[in-house]
Amino acid sequence: MEYLKYHKEHKLKITSNIKLNSSNLHKYYTPGVADPCQFIKNNLNEVYNYTWKANTIAVISDGTRILGLGNIGPLAALPLLEGKALIFNSFANINAIPISISSLDVNSTIELIKNISYSFGGINLEDISNPRCYDILDGLIEKLDIPVFHDDQQGTAVVILASLINALNLVNKNIKDTKIILYGIGAANTAVYRLLKIYGANINNIIAFDSKGAINSKRSDLFSVAILKEIANNTNINNYDIKNSFKDADVLIALSKPGPNTIDIELIKTMNKDAICFVCANPTPEIDPKILKSIGVKIVATGRSDYPNQANNALVFPGLFRGVLDSRASKITWTMCVDLAKTLAELARLDGLNYDYIIPKIDHPKLHFTIAKGIVDAAFKENLNKISDYDLIINNIKKNLIN
Amino acid sequence: MEYLKYHKEHKLKITSNIKLNSSNLHKYYTPGVADPCQFIKNNLNEVYNYTWKANTIAVISDGTRILGLGNIGPLAALPLLEGKALIFNSFANINAIPISISSLDVNSTIELIKNISYSFGGINLEDISNPRCYDILDGLIEKLDIPVFHDDQQGTAVVILASLINALNLVNKNIKDTKIILYGIGAANTAVYRLLKIYGANINNIIAFDSKGAINSKRSDLFSVAILKEIANNTNINNYDIKNSFKDADVLIALSKPGPNTIDIELIKTMNKDAICFVCANPTPEIDPKILKSIGVKIVATGRSDYPNQANNALVFPGLFRGVLDSRASKITWTMCVDLAKTLAELARLDGLNYDYIIPKIDHPKLHFTIAKGIVDAAFKENLNKISDYDLIINNIKKNLIN
Repeated sequence: MEYLKYHKEHKLKITSNIKLNSSNLHKYYTPGVADPCQFIKNNLNEVYNYTWKANTIAVISDGTRILGLGNIGPLAALPLLEGKALIFNSFANINAIPISISSLDVNSTIELIKNISYSFGGINLEDISNPRCYDILDGLIEKLDIPVFHDDQQGTAVVILASLINALNLVNKNIKDTKIILYGIGAANTAVYRLLKIYGANINNIIAFDSKGAINSKRSDLFSVAILKEIANNTNINNYDIKNSFKDADVLIALSKPGPNTIDIELIKTMNKDAICFVCANPTPEIDPKILKSIGVKIVATGRSDYPNQANNALVFPGLFRGVLDSRASKITWTMCVDLAKTLAELARLDGLNYDYIIPKIDHPKLHFTIAKGIVDAAFKENLNKISDYDLIINNIKKNLIN
Repeated sequence: MEYLKYHKEHKLKITSNIKLNSSNLHKYYTPGVADPCQFIKNNLNEVYNYTWKANTIAVISDGTRILGLGNIGPLAALPLLEGKALIFNSFANINAIPISISSLDVNSTIELIKNISYSFGGINLEDISNPRCYDILDGLIEKLDIPVFHDDQQGTAVVILASLINALNLVNKNIKDTKIILYGIGAANTAVYRLLKIYGANINNIIAFDSKGAINSKRSDLFSVAILKEIANNTNINNYDIKNSFKDADVLIALSKPGPNTIDIELIKTMNKDAICFVCANPTPEIDPKILKSIGVKIVATGRSDYPNQANNALVFPGLFRGVLDSRASKITWTMCVDLAKTLAELARLDGLNYDYIIPKIDHPKLHFTIAKGIVDAAFKENLNKISDYDLIINNIKKNLIN
């Protein structure tokens, strides 16, 4: 509990720049406030101009899978939501409101979030257990007219794909010919699968693992979850076992259980030349990165800040929401995520890649602006931006990120 | 729309007093944030010490009855919620979050609010249509372990009762012998009825009016709403019509439709000597206060700031939530509201009462502290305070109200 003390003082606070008193109260409260109410009633989009919705998101969890702590409930989830809100506030000048909700079934959760969405310009879902989180995210993307993002799915997947793009570039391999292992097919790796498919990977040449081993089309126990059914039916068409899966594999993307011995090192030794291993479990990578390097793995990434190549979704979410809020994007689609991964990869590439630098660091001075601009470009490409003045959007992003 | 321009700039903003950067991120976000999460999981009450819940409330409406504008929906309700949040912030240093929700049936609304209540130390309901608001408030008071307040019910009723206590004092009448007309039996006057009953009024000697006239026990159309059924069965036992109701009435409490001719002035002329008339419709009182005075009504109160005796619920809610948050009161009961009305009445009495001063003004220097301390005392009386150190609570109130 060495970090408990840092959370004793309240991290967030609401402030106002209006000095309210008895002589101006009538302007900001009744009767004056009836004017913007009436105006918005007749012009619903004006809610973005006359309320803080334009710069406010909800950070929502039901407490069902908080960090590595499991289902700890909505009260215990609050510090995490506040921590996330603090990052949004500090790095992207966004009002982020921690909202803990009861754990309900998928449809009830979607309805609940829909029923409270009006006050917010976007929804950031946080640490919701899988497989519930897949349908909750998809359902909300479909039903809401504000952007919805689940960091553990899209956020992590964008960073992983960006890292992979640069790693493949360094070892001169083409995504189409790459044999990829997705080790641990939870929220993050199902999203990585979706991005890989859009990015052009040969999905037949992907092998996904869950706790029962390599997944294939015989795994009917997975068929009740749409995305897992798709993965079971389309990956690992050779029905490889674990040995044949790792043999000559080019890429390992492990987002599974903390190590250091989650995966047998002997399997890694059978991987292809110029192997790429992302071992992203926190707090301890699935295999010790030093051991991976010592047996010749060319490029290693982890989730930790004390190793090179930190695949941290905090790279993405502050700038992403800055961009979707300022362009008023109605959705964050999976194709937008792929475009964003390319943008993120390019930022590191412009700095000059090497085996220990395939992904920008969290304090890269251009990071949040690049991400924000990248998601705006992606939204424009799909015509999902409700604000059409590109220069205005970019200026707003700059203004907000400087403050 | 003369006030629209004041709402163009965002009124509220979230700020942080932590300068977040890549070197302290691990303390406030993962992995450090796991410590308070785990700690709260094992000690649920510690959520008040390690998150902003202790000083944060939700200001919730479903948009069904916003100001005098009717059912304008959750988006158009947002400016009102922000205005209210601004008052909480400015006068009582409370983080108040505007939350607009879908309009649902009573039980679904209760469930929805319960399902999002974890992040908040209290709930302020705002402009929900009646009769739904009665059961929503009662249901939430019963089901939540945080205080729930509906300004249009408890807030207005506290101010009205406080005004009445002082008005009766000035004209030397006893509440027990007072014939009272409640004109317009909506959210406010049903709550006034509840407080009058607890305060000791003879409820048989109250006559309530709705749009169909004086209510009595034959009005079975009202029986589906518990509080209206109680009022129909217990007031107006003489089955007075409108003429006999006003004849010799001591007090008129009108919380009905904007005037200036909502009530026939000839009826007022038949009221008892030293008549007291509260004509609180906004923006225009039911009858012009000047006319009331000209025909000899002794004491007049309105909802407006440009007449004497403004019965404004903004007198109550900022200090009330300051007090319930700092004492961590689990409920705001109707008896606590009566105690608070007595406290509010006393504050004006200490200044010296006269016909034009029966209730403190919104900028009375002792107002918010007096209300906060008053509700703390009331909570202690009913053993509803979860913090037992009275001096600590009073000090916290002082600190928060000074900022």
